[in-house]
Amino acid sequence: MKATYMFGAGDVRVLDVPDPRIVDPTDAVVRVVRGCICGSDLHPFHTMEPTEQGSLKGHEAIGVIEEVGPEVRTVAPGDFVIMPFATQDNTCVHCRDGVHTSCVNGGFLAGGQSEALRLPQADGSAVTVPGVDPAAADDALLASLLTLSDVYLTGWHAAAMARVAPGATVTVIGDGAVGLCAVLSAREMGAERIILMGRHQVRTDLGREWGATDVVSARGEDGIAEVLELTDGAGSPVVLEAVGLEPAYRQAHGIVRPGGVISRVGVPQYATDPVSSRSQFSRNVTLTGGVAPVRAYIDAAIPKVLDGAIDPGRVFDMTVGVADVPAGYAAMDERRALKVMVDPSL
Amino acid sequence: MKATYMFGAGDVRVLDVPDPRIVDPTDAVVRVVRGCICGSDLHPFHTMEPTEQGSLKGHEAIGVIEEVGPEVRTVAPGDFVIMPFATQDNTCVHCRDGVHTSCVNGGFLAGGQSEALRLPQADGSAVTVPGVDPAAADDALLASLLTLSDVYLTGWHAAAMARVAPGATVTVIGDGAVGLCAVLSAREMGAERIILMGRHQVRTDLGREWGATDVVSARGEDGIAEVLELTDGAGSPVVLEAVGLEPAYRQAHGIVRPGGVISRVGVPQYATDPVSSRSQFSRNVTLTGGVAPVRAYIDAAIPKVLDGAIDPGRVFDMTVGVADVPAGYAAMDERRALKVMVDPSL
Repeated sequence: MKATYMFGAGDVRVLDVPDPRIVDPTDAVVRVVRGCICGSDLHPFHTMEPTEQGSLKGHEAIGVIEEVGPEVRTVAPGDFVIMPFATQDNTCVHCRDGVHTSCVNGGFLAGGQSEALRLPQADGSAVTVPGVDPAAADDALLASLLTLSDVYLTGWHAAAMARVAPGATVTVIGDGAVGLCAVLSAREMGAERIILMGRHQVRTDLGREWGATDVVSARGEDGIAEVLELTDGAGSPVVLEAVGLEPAYRQAHGIVRPGGVISRVGVPQYATDPVSSRSQFSRNVTLTGGVAPVRAYIDAAIPKVLDGAIDPGRVFDMTVGVADVPAGYAAMDERRALKVMVDPSL
Repeated sequence: MKATYMFGAGDVRVLDVPDPRIVDPTDAVVRVVRGCICGSDLHPFHTMEPTEQGSLKGHEAIGVIEEVGPEVRTVAPGDFVIMPFATQDNTCVHCRDGVHTSCVNGGFLAGGQSEALRLPQADGSAVTVPGVDPAAADDALLASLLTLSDVYLTGWHAAAMARVAPGATVTVIGDGAVGLCAVLSAREMGAERIILMGRHQVRTDLGREWGATDVVSARGEDGIAEVLELTDGAGSPVVLEAVGLEPAYRQAHGIVRPGGVISRVGVPQYATDPVSSRSQFSRNVTLTGGVAPVRAYIDAAIPKVLDGAIDPGRVFDMTVGVADVPAGYAAMDERRALKVMVDPSL
């Protein structure tokens, strides 16, 4: 089968490899129906040291179970499932706390940009979508279900960790797919004012459709000044940081209101916090967020997608077959695409 | 009058200076009934660069108003008041948000280790205690009222920012006066299990009286291991960090449960966060706390002290006159005293 590997910065290759097989008794093998490229895949695409063996890519996918290991109890061949980007047993102390990304038996999904993948901890990591036949479902529905493996629920996590409440004023930094999903989630939670910081109009237009009431295209000091002006000079009580780069994080501190909260879901590309501890402390800024425990949110999200209440699949604006995944990376890197779906049937 | 100044590390002097007077029309002049030395005063006591002019010390005090400026409306000569360590107008946008320490007209109280002080923004910064005559009140009541200017409500802030709720498991790092007040506050908020990390038995004994269910005297890796063992190996859902030094902060990260919260009220003595952003992010740790907006909490706290429901004044275990404030610093620095009260009548 075809599988996507990264061998270093800018070096994504599609290889012919043997089909995945059961290794641990809790594994499943899943035929990929749709996968995609994540904004976080671009970080190693820019910085990864060259390696000989390469790294299997793709941590977001929906698919059909082909085979299960002898200890798998809750899913069976033929089931159509969503796979959260983090794998988990869904039974350990951290899973019971709702922090599935810290599962003691957890890891990250790999192989979502391939024709099939090995899914560890299948009982905890595969979430069945009831009543949907992927062969008959329309593309828009599959796209929205695919977002439940990461991007929509990562946006949701940003807003949930910030405890966005009805009437809230929220600023979202970043008009990537996660940022737009954070806008949508904040609106669902009742935010009254949602300021979206981004400069790509096709994206910010979708952000407006999803609930952004203001768009600020300026960055850095100018962007900060504009958000302060929009918030009585006092700053934004809630900031959702959906980028992960240091300038975005600094911008978050520049616009957050004293006593406010910064919730970050962009994977930090800085080692230590570049903002002074003393300054955070003196302004009573709460810093929260992290890698989203998608499994904690997915059961509640599936009906919203099936009912058509939300359509997060609109973040996808390009689809490629597995053979063309490298072109998909290039398109996202060059910002010709917001988010690229992988359809192995193409 | 006598006033306490710090001129550099280890160099605290009591000087004879002119009485304070009204400078701004919103000022009051207050005769100090009780002041005290703060744990945070020890930070400059260890590190302050020598200066010619010195720095007026003492940011916690209760006293009697002697004189008010022409724009002061809500307090009058003769009123017995508590003065939060931060001054504020109590009307600006941040004060209305409850983040009085970010008041646009705010600053810090100074002169609390002197016989009298100039209080800026008296309408917002002096809180009248109804029905108490300081000349007739007993020492224990005055001591507890004095803690409402900082230490008790700083401990309260730690627990409040962490949203300690009934049934919670909370670990408090530090058996200084703020740490002990954080224990008391967590118990008031209904915490079921309170682990106090500290090694001075006279202090941890008071912590036990105030609600600590476990005391861990080990520090560093050993202390971390012990707290993990006490919390199912999973860590403490809430950590209140009441020290401010880097080892204590690292310890907080070592014991916090994934998805948990660290609330720090010890003034950070590290410039940038010494813990990797990536590690905080991957464990979904929320970092909150900051300089306590005492003014936001004080109205609710005064009746608890007057009713005898709480007795936070027990943190004081030594009292000096103004002339002996330097000896008080030495006693706290050498840990011969937990917290030193200043009684200008001595």
